[in-house]
Amino acid sequence: MYFASDNSAPVHPKIMEGLARANEGYAGGYGGDAATAHVRDMIREIFEAPDAAVYLVATGTAANALALASHVDPWQAIFCHPSAHIEEDECGAPEFYAGGAKLLLIDGPDGKIDPERFHAKAKITGQLGVHSIQRGALSVTNVTEVGTVYSLDEMRALTTIAKEYGISTHLDGARFTNAMVALDCSPAEMTWKSGFDAVSFGGTKNGCMGVEAVVLFDPDKAWEFELRRKRGGHLSSKYRYLSAQMEAYLTDNLWIKLAKHANAMADLLAAGLKDIKGAKFIHPQQANMLFCGWPRSGHKMAQAAGAMYYAWPEAEHPEKGPSDELLTARLVTSWSTTPQDVERFLDLIAG
Amino acid sequence: MYFASDNSAPVHPKIMEGLARANEGYAGGYGGDAATAHVRDMIREIFEAPDAAVYLVATGTAANALALASHVDPWQAIFCHPSAHIEEDECGAPEFYAGGAKLLLIDGPDGKIDPERFHAKAKITGQLGVHSIQRGALSVTNVTEVGTVYSLDEMRALTTIAKEYGISTHLDGARFTNAMVALDCSPAEMTWKSGFDAVSFGGTKNGCMGVEAVVLFDPDKAWEFELRRKRGGHLSSKYRYLSAQMEAYLTDNLWIKLAKHANAMADLLAAGLKDIKGAKFIHPQQANMLFCGWPRSGHKMAQAAGAMYYAWPEAEHPEKGPSDELLTARLVTSWSTTPQDVERFLDLIAG
Amino acid sequence: MYFASDNSAPVHPKIMEGLARANEGYAGGYGGDAATAHVRDMIREIFEAPDAAVYLVATGTAANALALASHVDPWQAIFCHPSAHIEEDECGAPEFYAGGAKLLLIDGPDGKIDPERFHAKAKITGQLGVHSIQRGALSVTNVTEVGTVYSLDEMRALTTIAKEYGISTHLDGARFTNAMVALDCSPAEMTWKSGFDAVSFGGTKNGCMGVEAVVLFDPDKAWEFELRRKRGGHLSSKYRYLSAQMEAYLTDNLWIKLAKHANAMADLLAAGLKDIKGAKFIHPQQANMLFCGWPRSGHKMAQAAGAMYYAWPEAEHPEKGPSDELLTARLVTSWSTTPQDVERFLDLIAG
Amino acid sequence: MYFASDNSAPVHPKIMEGLARANEGYAGGYGGDAATAHVRDMIREIFEAPDAAVYLVATGTAANALALASHVDPWQAIFCHPSAHIEEDECGAPEFYAGGAKLLLIDGPDGKIDPERFHAKAKITGQLGVHSIQRGALSVTNVTEVGTVYSLDEMRALTTIAKEYGISTHLDGARFTNAMVALDCSPAEMTWKSGFDAVSFGGTKNGCMGVEAVVLFDPDKAWEFELRRKRGGHLSSKYRYLSAQMEAYLTDNLWIKLAKHANAMADLLAAGLKDIKGAKFIHPQQANMLFCGWPRSGHKMAQAAGAMYYAWPEAEHPEKGPSDELLTARLVTSWSTTPQDVERFLDLIAG
Repeated sequence: MYFASDNSAPVHPKIMEGLARANEGYAGGYGGDAATAHVRDMIREIFEAPDAAVYLVATGTAANALALASHVDPWQAIFCHPSAHIEEDECGAPEFYAGGAKLLLIDGPDGKIDPERFHAKAKITGQLGVHSIQRGALSVTNVTEVGTVYSLDEMRALTTIAKEYGISTHLDGARFTNAMVALDCSPAEMTWKSGFDAVSFGGTKNGCMGVEAVVLFDPDKAWEFELRRKRGGHLSSKYRYLSAQMEAYLTDNLWIKLAKHANAMADLLAAGLKDIKGAKFIHPQQANMLFCGWPRSGHKMAQAAGAMYYAWPEAEHPEKGPSDELLTARLVTSWSTTPQDVERFLDLIAG
Repeated sequence: MYFASDNSAPVHPKIMEGLARANEGYAGGYGGDAATAHVRDMIREIFEAPDAAVYLVATGTAANALALASHVDPWQAIFCHPSAHIEEDECGAPEFYAGGAKLLLIDGPDGKIDPERFHAKAKITGQLGVHSIQRGALSVTNVTEVGTVYSLDEMRALTTIAKEYGISTHLDGARFTNAMVALDCSPAEMTWKSGFDAVSFGGTKNGCMGVEAVVLFDPDKAWEFELRRKRGGHLSSKYRYLSAQMEAYLTDNLWIKLAKHANAMADLLAAGLKDIKGAKFIHPQQANMLFCGWPRSGHKMAQAAGAMYYAWPEAEHPEKGPSDELLTARLVTSWSTTPQDVERFLDLIAG
Repeated sequence: MYFASDNSAPVHPKIMEGLARANEGYAGGYGGDAATAHVRDMIREIFEAPDAAVYLVATGTAANALALASHVDPWQAIFCHPSAHIEEDECGAPEFYAGGAKLLLIDGPDGKIDPERFHAKAKITGQLGVHSIQRGALSVTNVTEVGTVYSLDEMRALTTIAKEYGISTHLDGARFTNAMVALDCSPAEMTWKSGFDAVSFGGTKNGCMGVEAVVLFDPDKAWEFELRRKRGGHLSSKYRYLSAQMEAYLTDNLWIKLAKHANAMADLLAAGLKDIKGAKFIHPQQANMLFCGWPRSGHKMAQAAGAMYYAWPEAEHPEKGPSDELLTARLVTSWSTTPQDVERFLDLIAG
Repeated sequence: MYFASDNSAPVHPKIMEGLARANEGYAGGYGGDAATAHVRDMIREIFEAPDAAVYLVATGTAANALALASHVDPWQAIFCHPSAHIEEDECGAPEFYAGGAKLLLIDGPDGKIDPERFHAKAKITGQLGVHSIQRGALSVTNVTEVGTVYSLDEMRALTTIAKEYGISTHLDGARFTNAMVALDCSPAEMTWKSGFDAVSFGGTKNGCMGVEAVVLFDPDKAWEFELRRKRGGHLSSKYRYLSAQMEAYLTDNLWIKLAKHANAMADLLAAGLKDIKGAKFIHPQQANMLFCGWPRSGHKMAQAAGAMYYAWPEAEHPEKGPSDELLTARLVTSWSTTPQDVERFLDLIAG
């Protein structure tokens, strides 16, 4: 019963097998191996983007910060939601990589940037000329940090405004596939067809060991990205082991199967929670992460049985209090969550 | 016959086994797992440094840049050899991480910083007060970039000068173990007993998949390092897979065995080259990398048979020229080099 | 009738005389002249801070950014009001100087940081450990950007919270003296007695040519500040001409007289505006800047007569519209504003 | 007898008069005044560059760092002489402004970059692709830091190589006019006709209070420069006082007259020194700065009489030693040096 984070799950066996297969003989370093070329072609095909530049890095923070830095100048703004990972969870990596660029926060319900507020802020950003931070990039996270999913129309609304104001567009897809299967759309629809210039395409949270692809739909950004990646210490010497993960991940639709499973487990969890007396969802459950409150008594039972998850937003559960008090938690499912895990957990919290 | 680089070798089977073992069930992310705590203790014990701060990152460039940035201010100098990896091969990563610090180059024969030149430069650095870059850190690479090995006395001579001038000391040990076994000394003797404050302890080139430890002998630097690592995108979420590599690497002296083997293969190569008519060593061979010239005819034979290595310092071998002309190459051996590889190669270049 | 900005006023004649007096013979560069030592002593005495480090720079943006950078690390937050000059009008200078630090915006009425919101944000900042931006510095602007003045109690409330959380404290005093005379307090009461560690003490807007003092009450920050100033290109070689301005400014209470005059002119303006039918203040007028709306007809008259001021927040006044529509403006008075200017202006807008 | 530095001289009376003239009434801030527009036109005409972007800043370090930062990326190299002001005297300002770019030092006699060494280094810079710092900009200082003057041919030789390798070109003209009058050439010949893309055109050392122009011959760099200037805190609010200095400086050929005078005084000094027994020039004297050794006895006499200058390169003159021992000094003349100063000084050191 581990619902703390999808990055606490193990690596899927098919990906371990891919790593083992890659471990034969010598291979050129720094991406000069055959698997890397193969992966690039696979991603271009999957994204229907034959000219895209494709790079692999080991962490999501690196993917986001490098992608953004390649699209903004130090005196420009990155527009994002206050709950965005780049604002809340990366210790200022975007500012570091982008030479001191500023994150401008655009709020909106359910973890989504409100288009009207974005429009209003985009319009006035830079209005004092040289005195102002200038417009730079928009970063949209899908699945959002509160587990909701932007629809294609919602993403399109934001990128349309961005383009009107000459703002580059980035999709933080740490949970890309969970969103994509929730939307039942294609990778191209999720990205460039929705107006995105660059995407962080996550693998780690969905069964890989540690690999994220950055896909730049504007190949003119490629060389700058490569230099930034090296300079940031993110060019792996034994690159074949990044490629091998991604290759296995993309083969036989493994990536899609894993995300569908994770989402299905969250659906199961949500369905069960709805039956718990007093349970209250903070945000709609749409992919593999949900935020829900239920009575303290259920928390006690679950935790006594070893269930792992984060109270949200509190730092920790108060030990004492009325047993019917509602306490909120974040629950995340992954490729390795089982229906048995979910059912046992629901039984426990139902008391 | 692959002598291009030690990072082109595969991962040692024991390390792959370690990764497979680690792939069981859930584990806390970001270093909150049992293997990580175990590895930290192993490294503290191996280095006889019970208070050291120990961190794992996936690349050597990250290890160097993060370690140095934690020891210098942006207005300070990093003293290093002109051939140092941090100067020549990291696209400015130390400058990036250290906020624009300056690398001051101190030359010396055989890839080693000359102590007198270092003393002279350390003395005058900062002499114009606020107008000057200030003294910051010394970075010493052992094994050097030209395959030589600083003796303990040579390292001590440099760190003694550094300490006289309040300069922090960093050891770039991308090939740490190759140097250590060449010197037949202990990890502590290689590092803090030789006056170093911090070390990049390489695993990747010596059989791992992608892991380097940074050991900070001053634990007061720990928190700053952790923040810099996160901000640089180098805090792995599924950290257990870094730890699993390092754990297997350090178990049963595997790290030492692999380095001894690589060095022995280079010894064998050097012994054979000495018998080649006209062969000329550019630098003494002391660990697992050598720089040697031999007649063009031998290069042609080796390359025709598929041998892989870099001409040095030329970008490529001229196709045409007198067959007895001396052309220089860099040859690197690794844990996976076989005596058969070496012998076949020597036969080929002997003509 | 020039109410656009206090930095559009000329230099006070006494300060021009000081510059002329300083222009005799040779003088040591970079602050090694007698006037600079004298000014340092004057400022220490005025602020009752015998150990303070005192520096002069030519712009307010430099003063703020250098002072803040000396108190925060790149992975830390600077807490400020959304309307703060450092957020809105410096093109990211604090982020640039502080290596990518993040400005966290704490709103509150009348341009003042709300203490409860600051407390709440200070409390949670850094709560995710290494994933979060850490607490750094608080920057308070007095006179605020909307012309209001924090009371000593209001400033103390904020710095008390800051100290509770280990947050450094900076006062942006671009209009320091206007606030001080409005509060009828001493320089020490405005600063260290109110809990501030550092202050940007403005001269330019109050009659100087271009000089701001940075006063660091913690002298341990002095050397870092000096290096940052030089590195930022803000160490003037002919420093005596900065010192001569400040010396004349501080002599015979000139600085206080000028600020009192500017504030009195704003009082006069405010008193007259209150009599205008339909006029509406956006914020209370408390120093030398006010934000007020009055009917379009009055704007037309004033502008036709050549009055200069900014419409606020609109970029420009719409040419057409109902003559009784309320349009808002920012009006700033300075040492050189005359009662005649004010009266003529009031006559015009009264229609 | 003040030969310590040309920045220790006072401001020329004509420039003080210009400042007084500018001090009338209100003027738009940040360059929005009439004098600023006039100065821009004057500089465009003087440089025969009708499209050039022209900016004023208060220090030479700011001029250099901002100009260079606008021409290099953080992962690029700035090629300069080891004695260059940007390497030795700016506490890393170019690295700071250029986001961590690297200065690559190209030596050569008499403070001048050797073209062959520059060619060789330019050729190999970036040869390891993404692992290497890339080619960025060349910075040439004329007058050099050792008082010599590059001929037009010498400058052209360097910029020709630069252009061959796609390297931008910057002229550090802190003593621009001293070099120009020594070469008897036009401003255009000194700059764009010699292949330079940008120039720091110094005023401060040649009689101004504190003003340097940056002239960008590629107007496409203008907006980036303006943002960098603001962000660096170098956009003066009361800009008219920078413009007034430059306006007076350029009027009636004042700038040329002052430089000619300073150079003539150095010629006089050099002529006298050549007659001193045992005197030895370290570098040829070609403008307003010279490096020469003469016997200790002469130093004692001059210093006893209050002469001010720097021993070079020693930090200070040893108190004791043989009276005929040669000690080297740097002597700088300025617009305010008088023939009487020179003659008295020569008398003293002749013993």
